[in-house]
Amino acid sequence: MSASFTVDLNCDLGESFGAYQLGTDEAILPYVTSANIACGFHAGDPAVMKRTVRLALQHDVAIGAHPGLPDLVGFGRREMAVSAEEAHDMVVYQLGALEAFVRAEGGRMHHLKPHGALYNMAAVNAALAEAIAEAMYRVNPELVLYGLAGSELIRAGEKLGLRTAHEVFADRTYQQNGTLTPRRQPDALITDPQLAIRQVVRMVKEGKVRAQQGPDVAMKVDTVCIHGDGAHAVAFAQQIRQVLQQEGVQVRAAQYPATV
Amino acid sequence: MSASFTVDLNCDLGESFGAYQLGTDEAILPYVTSANIACGFHAGDPAVMKRTVRLALQHDVAIGAHPGLPDLVGFGRREMAVSAEEAHDMVVYQLGALEAFVRAEGGRMHHLKPHGALYNMAAVNAALAEAIAEAMYRVNPELVLYGLAGSELIRAGEKLGLRTAHEVFADRTYQQNGTLTPRRQPDALITDPQLAIRQVVRMVKEGKVRAQQGPDVAMKVDTVCIHGDGAHAVAFAQQIRQVLQQEGVQVRAAQYPATV
Amino acid sequence: MSASFTVDLNCDLGESFGAYQLGTDEAILPYVTSANIACGFHAGDPAVMKRTVRLALQHDVAIGAHPGLPDLVGFGRREMAVSAEEAHDMVVYQLGALEAFVRAEGGRMHHLKPHGALYNMAAVNAALAEAIAEAMYRVNPELVLYGLAGSELIRAGEKLGLRTAHEVFADRTYQQNGTLTPRRQPDALITDPQLAIRQVVRMVKEGKVRAQQGPDVAMKVDTVCIHGDGAHAVAFAQQIRQVLQQEGVQVRAAQYPATV
Amino acid sequence: MSASFTVDLNCDLGESFGAYQLGTDEAILPYVTSANIACGFHAGDPAVMKRTVRLALQHDVAIGAHPGLPDLVGFGRREMAVSAEEAHDMVVYQLGALEAFVRAEGGRMHHLKPHGALYNMAAVNAALAEAIAEAMYRVNPELVLYGLAGSELIRAGEKLGLRTAHEVFADRTYQQNGTLTPRRQPDALITDPQLAIRQVVRMVKEGKVRAQQGPDVAMKVDTVCIHGDGAHAVAFAQQIRQVLQQEGVQVRAAQYPATV
Repeated sequence: MSASFTVDLNCDLGESFGAYQLGTDEAILPYVTSANIACGFHAGDPAVMKRTVRLALQHDVAIGAHPGLPDLVGFGRREMAVSAEEAHDMVVYQLGALEAFVRAEGGRMHHLKPHGALYNMAAVNAALAEAIAEAMYRVNPELVLYGLAGSELIRAGEKLGLRTAHEVFADRTYQQNGTLTPRRQPDALITDPQLAIRQVVRMVKEGKVRAQQGPDVAMKVDTVCIHGDGAHAVAFAQQIRQVLQQEGVQVRAAQYPATV
Repeated sequence: MSASFTVDLNCDLGESFGAYQLGTDEAILPYVTSANIACGFHAGDPAVMKRTVRLALQHDVAIGAHPGLPDLVGFGRREMAVSAEEAHDMVVYQLGALEAFVRAEGGRMHHLKPHGALYNMAAVNAALAEAIAEAMYRVNPELVLYGLAGSELIRAGEKLGLRTAHEVFADRTYQQNGTLTPRRQPDALITDPQLAIRQVVRMVKEGKVRAQQGPDVAMKVDTVCIHGDGAHAVAFAQQIRQVLQQEGVQVRAAQYPATV
Repeated sequence: MSASFTVDLNCDLGESFGAYQLGTDEAILPYVTSANIACGFHAGDPAVMKRTVRLALQHDVAIGAHPGLPDLVGFGRREMAVSAEEAHDMVVYQLGALEAFVRAEGGRMHHLKPHGALYNMAAVNAALAEAIAEAMYRVNPELVLYGLAGSELIRAGEKLGLRTAHEVFADRTYQQNGTLTPRRQPDALITDPQLAIRQVVRMVKEGKVRAQQGPDVAMKVDTVCIHGDGAHAVAFAQQIRQVLQQEGVQVRAAQYPATV
Repeated sequence: MSASFTVDLNCDLGESFGAYQLGTDEAILPYVTSANIACGFHAGDPAVMKRTVRLALQHDVAIGAHPGLPDLVGFGRREMAVSAEEAHDMVVYQLGALEAFVRAEGGRMHHLKPHGALYNMAAVNAALAEAIAEAMYRVNPELVLYGLAGSELIRAGEKLGLRTAHEVFADRTYQQNGTLTPRRQPDALITDPQLAIRQVVRMVKEGKVRAQQGPDVAMKVDTVCIHGDGAHAVAFAQQIRQVLQQEGVQVRAAQYPATV
């Protein structure tokens, strides 16, 4: 019955820019099953995008667009008061740009996941979430929409009949209402990799996570975000994949192959 | 036999950016048959691209990508020492970005024409021309490649088996070797609209143009570039279209519908 | 006793960018007494800055830096979650850039006024306001800090011992607590130029404005923001200046010449 | 008589950008005497500039502006067909921006050295060189202009009566006419650090360098460019400084203290 549990390990890749190197794309690719590739607004440039698409195809990793806010100096991490229509348009633009590289390399797009502040805003702002889901729907309705588990973005995708993937973070704690503990709180991060991995395994196999306040809360998980930089990123990716497989969980791209 | 002569009237559109308006897109669209839409590097932004794609579709004008150098402040008019590979990648990126808007609006891409300094460099630099043609070929080989009549870009497109469109400029004079008279020369521009129109009609119907040095030179023309800004742009577009039709020339997008 | 009333008329200038023209700088300069010149982040570029500084010097108009958020496509009008330190640094950078043009042209800087969303955020966010005031203080403490009348930015400037200028908007209505009626409310704008001018005259001579809710509220005014674009901008500038002078109000740059 | 020989060791610093780290600024600062700090066009951002200015002041290293072409993705290394006036304006802008940080931190500017393609173009293009020298002259004529030894930029600076510093590259070979061996030639680089150091010592003490073609050529050297990145950058900087001092050469910022 091991096949009954599956999960995707996704990672943000292609975040270098011009002369600037960021992340350990080649080292982490063997351990993840889907790659969110930056599209030039918050990180990435055409050359980096091409190179990263090629790497992902070589490692048979599912390719997703990772559109962000137009804020290179802030790495797309600063919230901006963009309108829903502006968010729609910037997602269409970036998705198209990445898709062209994928097509040029003979590959196929698999998903879309907003980056940074755009991701966070889309998790709680229904109008923004719908604009982003609509953008993906209009450009390529076959893609899987990645969003924070239980977020407005997931709801917006479901409303349009899109395939979605609930995303969790291995190294973050959760609140009783199912939301992430805000980063500014002291217990927001799980620093022990073993605890982080155990939390993920439980979410995958039991559909539950222990809230910071004590009780378990239900948590649907289709995909786990793995960080691509930091000293221990690669080791952690390798470890979580190994443990998941030992636990009988099949690690593969979310909703792949398509069931619709 | 009037149907035996056809020509396309193309115009650069979508060159506004953010709060900045440029050009008279809505006024000129009724008179042209194909639109080269800026893709965000030298001009244009996601909102402008969406709006321009919608306008072009409303006017049933063929849509082309108009990729440029990454130089917004210089409007893509300053030559940059980009490598052939960089040119390839920036064309893939911009073509994909525009194509996503076209798809989102239910339209179809028709052509690609490099902008400004990229166009000029691709006219004479074979390696750059091949990289650009290759980029279009890999993303969408059905598109028509617009380039300066008789240029390296046209040659590069033909080498790859792409459909191409030889472009002429209504208001420019030509040299005995078939090249444009450089802008810095005093007789580079034709300021009398009647002369400009007569030159185009002759190029279309006789395949010839009178060189500045005196003799006629052969000139293949599939498409004529019409300027979208300037005081008399719209009046000129209207006039040239009218005269061409009176002369029995069918005005329609280059190679449209596809014959391959 | 006409000299006892003075007020400054300021205008945002130098908002063109590359090939893009915006505003009517040359036409409005004869009627204003201080110019807020864009510094390249939300608008303006080095060539535009030089040209605008020269124009301001020709018209003997006091020159101020008009730093904005790094958001050219949004014209600096979209709020961004920048930290106080980031705001500090972007003001230092932009102030220095403009000051170099002023020095190169043999002029002198007079003031600083944040632009758009940065101005609005600095009006209500004390930490941001202090960071901006500190930036100006550290680069050039002789400058006058322009801010919304009664705002956090003015308070931050006063705290540092800086000279400040309370700014009002001719075409905006006010609330009982002295704040601007939010733009989204139907009665936020004064569309009748005569009413707008009368409101300014009263603020200058009586230190009062009639609130939307009825009663008068105290309103200190050192400088009035005049819009530089729009169909009637120049006519309005001319008119308000004329009426102010007829009313015995001296129109000159805020706190100019320096009294410290 | 050891004081009769002096030379400056300069290094490009502050080339990080946003989330992107580049170079080993803190490690190399103890060994150099002047720092060329990126100004935001080809690298650097306001936060990085502030941080780098502080570091340079802590290490008592002379601070220079390092303005570049507006080409972040190309790191300012791709030649662009900018006009002399555009070059002038971009140097004024960037110099002013950096100078503001230096002033805010209580320091003093010392020099200016163009970066990358702007440096290379200014070495051979007299009009561009004059525009850059003029920009520095108009903003701050006390600064020292760093340029390739014997270049048009040095000539342009001297023509304006500016103090200049002839720069050599430790790891590059020279031609009989005193120019650098172009990078594309196989013998352009000196890979043995001992040879590189010996070449510099000889240039400083004898004013000569052995050309690739055999004979010695005269070579004036005021400052030596030390690379700030690469595996052996810090070790090389430490070594060259040590050897120079052993050879009785005083290592200090070019023309410092000022003699005018």
